[in-house]
Amino acid sequence: MTDKFRLPARYGAGEKSVWVEYIQLAADYKPAVNLGQGFPDYHAPKHVTKALADIATSDNPLLMQYTRGFGHPRLVQNIAKVYSPLIGRELDPFNEILVTSGAYEALYSAILGHVDEGDEVIVIEPFFDCYDFMIKCAGGIPKFIALKPKTGKENMTSADWVLDEKELSSLFTNKTKMLILNTPHNPLGKVFTKEELELIANLCKKHNVLCVSDEVYEWMVYEPNKHIRIATLPDMWERTITIGSAGKTFSVTGWKIGWAYCPANLMRNLQVVHQNCVYTCPTPTQEAVARSFEIELSRINSPECYFYSLARELLPKRDFLVRTLKENGFNPTIPDGGYFIVADWTNLGKKIDLSSEQDKYKDYRFTKKFAKEAGVLAIPPSAFYSEAHKNLGEDFARFCFIKKDENLALTEKLLKTWNTSK
Amino acid sequence: MTDKFRLPARYGAGEKSVWVEYIQLAADYKPAVNLGQGFPDYHAPKHVTKALADIATSDNPLLMQYTRGFGHPRLVQNIAKVYSPLIGRELDPFNEILVTSGAYEALYSAILGHVDEGDEVIVIEPFFDCYDFMIKCAGGIPKFIALKPKTGKENMTSADWVLDEKELSSLFTNKTKMLILNTPHNPLGKVFTKEELELIANLCKKHNVLCVSDEVYEWMVYEPNKHIRIATLPDMWERTITIGSAGKTFSVTGWKIGWAYCPANLMRNLQVVHQNCVYTCPTPTQEAVARSFEIELSRINSPECYFYSLARELLPKRDFLVRTLKENGFNPTIPDGGYFIVADWTNLGKKIDLSSEQDKYKDYRFTKKFAKEAGVLAIPPSAFYSEAHKNLGEDFARFCFIKKDENLALTEKLLKTWNTSK
Repeated sequence: MTDKFRLPARYGAGEKSVWVEYIQLAADYKPAVNLGQGFPDYHAPKHVTKALADIATSDNPLLMQYTRGFGHPRLVQNIAKVYSPLIGRELDPFNEILVTSGAYEALYSAILGHVDEGDEVIVIEPFFDCYDFMIKCAGGIPKFIALKPKTGKENMTSADWVLDEKELSSLFTNKTKMLILNTPHNPLGKVFTKEELELIANLCKKHNVLCVSDEVYEWMVYEPNKHIRIATLPDMWERTITIGSAGKTFSVTGWKIGWAYCPANLMRNLQVVHQNCVYTCPTPTQEAVARSFEIELSRINSPECYFYSLARELLPKRDFLVRTLKENGFNPTIPDGGYFIVADWTNLGKKIDLSSEQDKYKDYRFTKKFAKEAGVLAIPPSAFYSEAHKNLGEDFARFCFIKKDENLALTEKLLKTWNTSK
Repeated sequence: MTDKFRLPARYGAGEKSVWVEYIQLAADYKPAVNLGQGFPDYHAPKHVTKALADIATSDNPLLMQYTRGFGHPRLVQNIAKVYSPLIGRELDPFNEILVTSGAYEALYSAILGHVDEGDEVIVIEPFFDCYDFMIKCAGGIPKFIALKPKTGKENMTSADWVLDEKELSSLFTNKTKMLILNTPHNPLGKVFTKEELELIANLCKKHNVLCVSDEVYEWMVYEPNKHIRIATLPDMWERTITIGSAGKTFSVTGWKIGWAYCPANLMRNLQVVHQNCVYTCPTPTQEAVARSFEIELSRINSPECYFYSLARELLPKRDFLVRTLKENGFNPTIPDGGYFIVADWTNLGKKIDLSSEQDKYKDYRFTKKFAKEAGVLAIPPSAFYSEAHKNLGEDFARFCFIKKDENLALTEKLLKTWNTSK
């Protein structure tokens, strides 16, 4: 019986997930601070959670029932209002926007909806680990290129991690269907510059390739950096699928509401996938995100708008954690965006005995042992590299800093204690 | 450009959806009563919506953030508590239960997780239309068998729609991977009897075939009928994936929380698909469903338990709509379960001119014209048959009766007015 009911070939071996493993690790070892998974451990904006409470107790019973499959009307209309000015064109809420079960399902719909057997997809390393799995599940072939750090620099920032132009050009072939961009970048925090985006855009145009632009960290960009949407570059609208997230935008990752926007002809493919796998997204949370957008739109020119206040709120957290890591022997890359810090831990190598850990890659061994000894959990970045390039991630650990100040202070204390004991 | 970015072959032509079409029809023609899509137009139980409101305003910020990917711990524990006594075995909440984006995504995970290229899947007609599309998307081959009505009977009930034993046996081959059962049945309302389930179970066992049992209407069964879970039949647990729905159980279809339960070895395949397409489900609604289950479990032996009160509440609605349809020239099949009535409309054929409608199938023409003339929207059941058997659905229309009494009374008035005008 077992053999007959094995996993279909398209799913490979079922892919080990770093998330499943590290969430289990957190449950087993209960580290004092979990800087692993990317979500805030403090309250979402009050107006956002209040919107959900209002809806739950509303007089309108239909807010608890099915809504339009491709997106709740009030939500797609507000997404159009938010993004139309940002991309300089009027988005059609009913044909150019799809609401999904988190940005995750938007990626799934974009990749499964466009990648066919044998298509090649260019992926920039390190990458959000699901890209690779989704591409393979669609029968596609991922082609990887790594962002590489300029070596020998003090106080590296995420801008010091760069693509090699020649190497990137050489990856485009007549089989290339898609390139996946992620800006601001997880885990590095890199905010791609106009010049970097133009290089990518020009190659996509030259080779008639789609660009899937994962921009879920779009509002977490630290001055003077600016988030540029690649869909706004000349002639890129027609070949770009942009992905956003209510979870990241409003600090409610547990709501699992995301979206994609792109031209209607490209959107049709995403709709078919979405219609096939979840059909429609929850009504109450979609309505609450719509109302939350309405409040931000009403104060879009004020610094109080959460789109801007979030990054201001995060900046001191970033700086605190960068300093703490530095003072304790890590060499962190200062991120220009996002809420992660990638830090080189190799200077601590002589202080920690990894021989009791069995994992193949050093960063897995380090983060596991460090969680057990110091009580601080980070994520091993080799999970975000292809098999052939995992060595590029082995010297690093990823720390999330969208955590309450009290937990960041505790991190400092734990790192100091660990260092002193060594 | 267009040709390069066409839909991948696995999605066929993209499949026309009766839901997209009829939701648009409702928006365009605004029929006075919409008995099309299956959802209540009145309030969900107060404790259920209150749970969501409490969570939205809770002191615990983590209730708005990511939870465990395969199911929020408090929810899977409660699902285990609800179903363990019903299936007579202790369900392991962490390995035998998966929470999904509605029962829809549970079906997707079960089908995509088990059906491989060339596998055959037996589907009973009429069927919830997504089965067919999901099977094809997995590379499988659906094999259809229709429930057929015993003809010439007055006051037909859903029990009068039956499978031909010989025909069913003949569909099993060495390529058969799966059979999809739906009891209580949408759209007929048939509650499969023990004898009928034993026939199916014995064939599944004989041919080593999985049974996916879609039981989302499990609590809507009208006495003296009893819902029997096929997983409880001898030696069926090991080959059955059972699917349930919080939307149907608690009258909150818009929450999109569903689940599957089955042995851990079969579950692994579903987890891989789920992890790939949505990764995790929303936390606040999962927590609210968990708390709602806790309340029902605390009064499980009382008639006030919503599991039992829902069917009591629906019974007079069913009887009212059956009578209304009969009095106005339809010949309805009385459903033993679920919240739909399938009614033969052909006696009205001479009263309605369908020549202005362009659709290929008569039931599409009838339901469209009838919505425009009478102001009552129903769904054409040929959407629930395979291409070769669509004629079997053409004489019928599907009406949903989980609607407030005021709208059922309005339906009666509209039908009478329409009849009188003819």
